[in-house]
Formats: sequence, C-alpha cells, structure tokens
Amino acid sequence: MQERSLPIGVFDSGMGGISVLKALTQAMPGEDFIYLGDTARLPYGTKSPQTVVRYSLQCAAALASRGIRCLVVACNTASTPALPALRAQYVDFPIVGVIQPGAQAAVAISRSLHIAVIGTEVTISGGAYQAAILSLNSRARVSALACPLFVALAEEGLTTGPIAEALAHRYLDPIFQVDSPPDTLVLGCTHFPVLKEAILAALPKGVNIVDSAVTTAAAVKALLHPTISLTRGRVTWLATDNPARFARVGSTFLGEPLSPDAIELVDL
Amino acid sequence: MQERSLPIGVFDSGMGGISVLKALTQAMPGEDFIYLGDTARLPYGTKSPQTVVRYSLQCAAALASRGIRCLVVACNTASTPALPALRAQYVDFPIVGVIQPGAQAAVAISRSLHIAVIGTEVTISGGAYQAAILSLNSRARVSALACPLFVALAEEGLTTGPIAEALAHRYLDPIFQVDSPPDTLVLGCTHFPVLKEAILAALPKGVNIVDSAVTTAAAVKALLHPTISLTRGRVTWLATDNPARFARVGSTFLGEPLSPDAIELVDL
Repeated sequence: MQERSLPIGVFDSGMGGISVLKALTQAMPGEDFIYLGDTARLPYGTKSPQTVVRYSLQCAAALASRGIRCLVVACNTASTPALPALRAQYVDFPIVGVIQPGAQAAVAISRSLHIAVIGTEVTISGGAYQAAILSLNSRARVSALACPLFVALAEEGLTTGPIAEALAHRYLDPIFQVDSPPDTLVLGCTHFPVLKEAILAALPKGVNIVDSAVTTAAAVKALLHPTISLTRGRVTWLATDNPARFARVGSTFLGEPLSPDAIELVDL
Repeated sequence: MQERSLPIGVFDSGMGGISVLKALTQAMPGEDFIYLGDTARLPYGTKSPQTVVRYSLQCAAALASRGIRCLVVACNTASTPALPALRAQYVDFPIVGVIQPGAQAAVAISRSLHIAVIGTEVTISGGAYQAAILSLNSRARVSALACPLFVALAEEGLTTGPIAEALAHRYLDPIFQVDSPPDTLVLGCTHFPVLKEAILAALPKGVNIVDSAVTTAAAVKALLHPTISLTRGRVTWLATDNPARFARVGSTFLGEPLSPDAIELVDL
C-alpha cells in the first residue's frame, strides 16, 4: 500500500481561490488539499502591496505548519507582490502562483499578440501580468483593466443576467469595441470564472478566454507526480472568520454545496 | 480669546463614514475633527460581530489617545455590535452611533409606520435598526434588506446611470412594488447617500428617504455646544492603509478633492 502524500496547500484572501481549488481537484482527483481563506482580512485587492506580502507570509506559515507538498497562491492579488518573499522563506516545497501560468497560456493561444487582462486594482496596477507576458514575448501588447465590481457581483452570486452583462459591457467595450481589439482575454482574478458567461456575452466573437484557475491547475499537475487513487482525495477547509459566509459564497465558486460545519476557524 | 475645544473623533471601516463627516462639518463648521478610516481591514460588513467589536475598540483607542470631546461611530456595521463595548470602555466623552438617530427620524416621519431599511449584510442580519425602530414604536413594521453591491458601486464612483438604477430596482422592487409598501426608506449604510439619485429613481413617488449621515450629525449637534468660529475647523485624516485609494474614494463621499498627502498612515 502506497503511503499517502502530504496535501497540496492553497490559499486566497477569501473564497475566490476556490475556483482554483476546483480546477486542481478536477486535474488531480486523488490528491488531498488544504484550502485557507483569509476571510477576516479580505479583500486583499484594495490593500497595499506591503500589507498583502505580510498577510501572505502568515497564510503560508499556517499551511506549512500542517505539512504540505506544494503551495498554490490562488490569488492574483497576492501572487503579484508575495511570490518572491514566499520563495525566499520556503525552499522545501514548490510554490506556484496564478500569474505565470495565465501569461504563458495567453501568449501561446494569441495570434495577434494583443492580449487583454482584467483583474483587481492591485493586480492591474502592480503590472505583474503585463510584465510576465512581455517577458515571454517582447512583441506582445497588453491592454489591462481593473474590474473591481466583478468581484462584488461574483460574491453576491449575481453572475448572470442583465446587470452582470451591462457591467461587462461597461468594462470591456472600451477595450474590445475598437479597431484591432485584443484576440485573447485573461481572467486575471479567481472570482471571474463564474462570470464567464456574462463576459462572453459582452465580447466580440472569436476572442479566446484564458481562465487562470484552469491554467494554474495544469501547471501544478505538470510539476508534481499526482497521487493515483481510486478514491477521491480529501479537502480540509480553513478560514480566519465567518464560516457561514465562507460556505455560502464558496459554494458559488466550488459549484457544489459547502457546509459551514466543514470549515475550521483558525487565527493567524 | 476662547480656548479651542478638543476635536470630535469619527471612525469607520473605510471611506463611507466620510459622508457622516461631511454632514457633521456642514452642521458644525467651526469644529475640528479627526477622521480615522480602518482601510487596512475594510470592509467590516462581511466580518463577524466579534471581530468588528475588536477592531472598533482599537479605532476608538487610537482616537482617544489624541484627545477627543465626542466619538462618532460613523459605520452602521460597527454601530450594531460595538456601541455597548465602547461605552463600557470610555466614560469621559459621549459616543454616538448612526443607528439610533436614523431610527428616530424614520419613526418621526413615517405615517404608515411601515419602514424599509437597507444596509450591509451584518447591519441587516444583526437587526439593530429593526430593534431600534420597534423600541421607539412597537406598532411599526420593518422591511429590512441587505444591499452589499451598493457598497461596491459607491466605492467605484458608479453612483448614477443605468447600472446603478438597474441594481436599485433589483434590490428595491420586491419591497416597494407590492400592496401597501413602506412609506419611508432608511439608508442604513454610510455609502448609500451618494447613491440617493439612483435609489430615488427606483422608488415609488412620495417615499421618504432618511439619510443616516444627516440624522447622526443633527444628533451630535444637539448633544454638544458647537464651537462658534469665524474660521472653518480643521479635519485631521488618519488611515490604516493605502492613502491613495482613501483619497480617491473618499473624495466621492466628501464631495470635494482630498489629497493623499493630507492623510496620515497609522498602525492600530
């Protein structure tokens, strides 16, 4: 009988990273996972880079103390400033963010190399997607836009219908209703995959969508030798506050019910 | 020459309380104020009551240490659970929340005594407005509704136009497009006054709007003997994170420009 591997640790400022966890469990169904949502201090997207780095180190410490074989920073806002500090601190397991896999997928799929990226204010103003895409191909052109209201829509579960579509048009028309628009759009926030339908409705036909949750899961799978198991792995849920809201909003991102009783409250 | 009074301390989880500060400066232009926005930990509206009480005590301590003559909890979310703890801790100056003045104004103006209240999730589920209104008149009937997306709209400055109005209809129609709707609506969140135009557009004619910022300022003025001065008082600005965003979003609520350089960063 094979000894079970340590779980894969995943953290986010809140519940959006559950879209990454969902993609990870679909890519590697035999693995165990620990997911930590720092719900006491969400959102990271409006906080300064220094604060986001400090919080990320605390999240990583909580997961590392339980033993993990890989750390996934399932948060575009935290991936931007925190990866260097995390990698300096932890050398015993690989650390994967969501920026690089999304940038690689976008450069691979785009024909015109004109790529749009949407995310939170910190992700976009931090410029990490723009830098990652340009370092992969210096001829690329990036149109980047912060869409903070998409986060609020996703958390309220208002993911389809006229309000979501009107907001998608308001954000995306200035980028796509022009001459020579981008041919690829990176969903650079883990909240955005659940809005994919409304976003697609606002886009011109033929634009590629890169879902950073799916591309991150593929990158983690390529890095590890996933556990082969006939049984589905377990997910351990941790949150720093408000398990009831974590469960309610989290089930939107997980796509299946999540019970507040399954969530362990931790203090960082 | 009269000795200057100590300033009036005002705190909120972020910038929304600036709508209360604006009403206070209009009601008492000769007074000095210190405003603290706990921007490192906003929003309070999605956090547990225990966490909100802890944060509120830390905000009050920061203001009290500088010397204040009155403390205004300019945050509906914090007023709900934190006032008893704050009043137990500080007996040297009066402490005013935003719930009681709004409830009093609503009961005074409503003819049918059917009153609607909108606010954040914690404000509404905490039931403080409902309890305050019923304690003033036990025959009153309260229709309460959480409108968290209004907060995100206000912070993005998307306060008028079709998206704001569509969202107002989505939230308010189930309460007002019925037989015997409420005749009074309490804006039970400091973010909502800037959305007043969109909210009015979604309401049946003749509904009274109670703005908790204005009613709170009137309550503070009635409690103090405001400084009479030919010169306008000063406002000292404190924030726990991200002065640039504080200034940008805050100017929406203040209704005039606010410079990031005017904001002192403090650590609680």
